[in-house]
Amino acid sequence: MYNFAFIPANSMSNNKTAIAEHVASLLLSCGAVILQPEKPFTWASGWKSPIYCDNRITLSFPEIRKEITNLLYQVSMQYFPNTNAVAGVATGGIPQGVLLADRLDVPFLYIRSAAKEHGRQNQVEGSIIPDAKTLIIEDLISTGGSALSSAEALKREGGMITGMLAVFTYGFEQAEKAFADAGINLYTLSDFNTLIRIASQKGMILGNQIDELERWKKSPESWGK
Amino acid sequence: MYNFAFIPANSMSNNKTAIAEHVASLLLSCGAVILQPEKPFTWASGWKSPIYCDNRITLSFPEIRKEITNLLYQVSMQYFPNTNAVAGVATGGIPQGVLLADRLDVPFLYIRSAAKEHGRQNQVEGSIIPDAKTLIIEDLISTGGSALSSAEALKREGGMITGMLAVFTYGFEQAEKAFADAGINLYTLSDFNTLIRIASQKGMILGNQIDELERWKKSPESWGK
Repeated sequence: MYNFAFIPANSMSNNKTAIAEHVASLLLSCGAVILQPEKPFTWASGWKSPIYCDNRITLSFPEIRKEITNLLYQVSMQYFPNTNAVAGVATGGIPQGVLLADRLDVPFLYIRSAAKEHGRQNQVEGSIIPDAKTLIIEDLISTGGSALSSAEALKREGGMITGMLAVFTYGFEQAEKAFADAGINLYTLSDFNTLIRIASQKGMILGNQIDELERWKKSPESWGK
Repeated sequence: MYNFAFIPANSMSNNKTAIAEHVASLLLSCGAVILQPEKPFTWASGWKSPIYCDNRITLSFPEIRKEITNLLYQVSMQYFPNTNAVAGVATGGIPQGVLLADRLDVPFLYIRSAAKEHGRQNQVEGSIIPDAKTLIIEDLISTGGSALSSAEALKREGGMITGMLAVFTYGFEQAEKAFADAGINLYTLSDFNTLIRIASQKGMILGNQIDELERWKKSPESWGK
């Protein structure tokens, strides 16, 4: 059903590029990445896009799901060693977030995009532990908007944040600036440039498609409009 | 921070009552149950309620979270042994759903209450595996409405359902009838009647509060209006 080589995870704990290439291969191997320049996707932000990275697909492949949990675990130990709680950004960050919390044996929370309209009207679900350094998990960073507004919500309700860890980023300057402005350290397992390089190496995309993807990457806000 | 006795999980795999009492104790021990007759909650269904069972709180207590995963695992092996995929009802059923999928080493999906308005416009997230018998995980059953509409969405998109497993049910007749009408087997770890009995034994609720809760249980649709 899918076909990829497992790299012994320990060997790459110090190698960001190796992790990024490995995760790009995992995403491509299970069909999580969809290229559709002729019928662009519309994102929540209103941007048009020739590519859609649906990390939720990885959840349906137990070996890939487990490998991503392993990598999040290694990276969290190396880059965010003081983590003592994990929060997932709803909905995409919840599954790998709770699997990581289980591995780290720490409390888990999740953060809705807006407060629930009924019941207790929570935006942050779970029990915020005072002074717990919380690592926020997101599946995918595009503009960074929803991830950063989740971080704001957690802080507003008394949470402390040690950083953010995401499976994939498109690597837009806008997002990098937004994280820098917010003073939040972001680590991402893989990214757009690595994905395109690996897809090209595997013959999964051709020269003219790469050109189109690079045009989009330069000005996503105006592409396709 | 919390205080409860762990019952050796194996000893109660054939004992629904023991599981229900144990889970009720877990919910009470971490503050997941809130009694507030003087300031009723309003549910998504519009009903007023003197009680709110917030199972998300359990996610922030690693030992309780793990114990609930263990019980879901045991029950799924006993009552739904042919399970080869797990789907969580968003958002509350996602965390324990993916932890169970991890334990069973099977594909995971999650089901939104409505289709996403952007991107791929999915209601079911993940990759539906044809012929996989899917066990749906929900945190809490009240009227049964959102759980059953998730089951409908999964079937509409080609999924097969082996049953539904929830952490808690209020045990309303309306929900029982709805599940029977839909032909879906529902197993719940704990329930309202058990919770009230255990809370009363522990001296956490008093006689007049129990009367009020029983009045509500009889006619939740008109209580407090």
